[in-house]
Amino acid sequence: MKALAIVKIGGSIIDDAAQLSTFLKNFSGLGGHKILVHGGGSQASRLADELHLKTEMVDGRRVTDLENLRVVTMIYGGLISKNIVAGLQAASCNAIGLSGADANLIRAMRRPVLKVVDQIGEEKELDYGYAGDLTPNSVNRDQLRALLEMQLVPVFSAITHNGQGQLLNTNADTIASAIAVAMANFYEVSLIYCFEKKGVLADVANEDSVIQTIDQKRFADLKVEGLISKGMLPKLQNAFSAIENGVKEVLIGKAEELEELLKQKSGTRLIKQDDGK
Amino acid sequence: MKALAIVKIGGSIIDDAAQLSTFLKNFSGLGGHKILVHGGGSQASRLADELHLKTEMVDGRRVTDLENLRVVTMIYGGLISKNIVAGLQAASCNAIGLSGADANLIRAMRRPVLKVVDQIGEEKELDYGYAGDLTPNSVNRDQLRALLEMQLVPVFSAITHNGQGQLLNTNADTIASAIAVAMANFYEVSLIYCFEKKGVLADVANEDSVIQTIDQKRFADLKVEGLISKGMLPKLQNAFSAIENGVKEVLIGKAEELEELLKQKSGTRLIKQDDGK
Repeated sequence: MKALAIVKIGGSIIDDAAQLSTFLKNFSGLGGHKILVHGGGSQASRLADELHLKTEMVDGRRVTDLENLRVVTMIYGGLISKNIVAGLQAASCNAIGLSGADANLIRAMRRPVLKVVDQIGEEKELDYGYAGDLTPNSVNRDQLRALLEMQLVPVFSAITHNGQGQLLNTNADTIASAIAVAMANFYEVSLIYCFEKKGVLADVANEDSVIQTIDQKRFADLKVEGLISKGMLPKLQNAFSAIENGVKEVLIGKAEELEELLKQKSGTRLIKQDDGK
Repeated sequence: MKALAIVKIGGSIIDDAAQLSTFLKNFSGLGGHKILVHGGGSQASRLADELHLKTEMVDGRRVTDLENLRVVTMIYGGLISKNIVAGLQAASCNAIGLSGADANLIRAMRRPVLKVVDQIGEEKELDYGYAGDLTPNSVNRDQLRALLEMQLVPVFSAITHNGQGQLLNTNADTIASAIAVAMANFYEVSLIYCFEKKGVLADVANEDSVIQTIDQKRFADLKVEGLISKGMLPKLQNAFSAIENGVKEVLIGKAEELEELLKQKSGTRLIKQDDGK
């Protein structure tokens, strides 16, 4: 099977023109099929501020009313997507900016309104607005494969649609792992999460405590020992779920060290079972 | 040769949700290969206002400084593009939203700073900022054809790039005609300009004075007679230039009457030579 690298970058790298430019050069240099998935939450929040809109977050997720949906569609689907694509094109990488609506590539379901009980025991409704959740069949794998086989490099923003004309705001980490799982039928998939730390740290306060390899057994142990930070836990759970569903490996580390990450000279590698390499 | 319809819509129809929805339904219903090109200037101006930016127009063209480039990239490339695509997908039309940067489909050159002489005879510089002009080789015809042959329906926003990482704001009418000419090698191309009037009017004050057919000879006569309005003249010149370069016909009329336009039951048809049909 041919290799496919799926790289997810977050808002902090997009914010920094110099870092972004270095990253795009490194990404362009990767051989073989590849896909980029980008966030952009901090830019969306800034535009929302400029437009005097309220940005409400619940458990790290944006509550997306119609006005905020307009903002994320402009920022993720327009500004960030088109600038990344132009930057990649300048580096001779044949990028194409896509939302889930484009070519019907990713369909989502609007997140249902949840009944929650608040701190004083009262039942409340929790409505994330136009937030889209993915299902196992969300990714249109044949269409995406056809684009990859044309030697195009898809650049996904975290906007999906419901198939009935409604755009939806979807978590970029989730999109990256859903694409990884969907494409594991066709390719040997490496899923790479770039973020601000060097990898999964054994000691959050120590940047040099990167754990090189974690397999499923070690992950279970680490959870029991309580060694995984609260912010990292859902990322890792998501990653191991991708691995259980056919993804070869998940790499976690710094965007600036993309090449080293792929060569396993940097960052953390998550795999099904440690082969002792 | 297979038929290809290239339809350009402007900001006024995009502004009106009911009109847009009717148009998208009609557009979806067109058989064969098709491409949509959209403007969106009025929405861009509104966002610029909300952000307290100055919108400067010279001869109907937007002066695009960096802040305004950001606005048009968000509005054309993001908000309008993704909403049109989601609407078309809901009508079972496999649309894909594209700027000229995506898949390197349209490269432009930044418009040079012009030296102009103002009314009191003083020489001034006229700088349109990040405005992109097209050249005869701007459209990547092979890549665009490959997308059409995948049964995708490209939806173009009026954003291009220069190949060196810079996005550029480009006139949507010009993009539509450049695509039409580029694709005339492969397809029998009909270029359709939708706007607010029923067609080219013999009497601007009378909506029922639509001229059914204009060929090159008649166009020359109409110009001599001064019967063409100032706003219509560049549109027609552009259209006849497309026809001289291989486009089968240019149709001009109302977006709501798209089907009738294509059946020549409405609007104005521009052709090389009237065959008396």
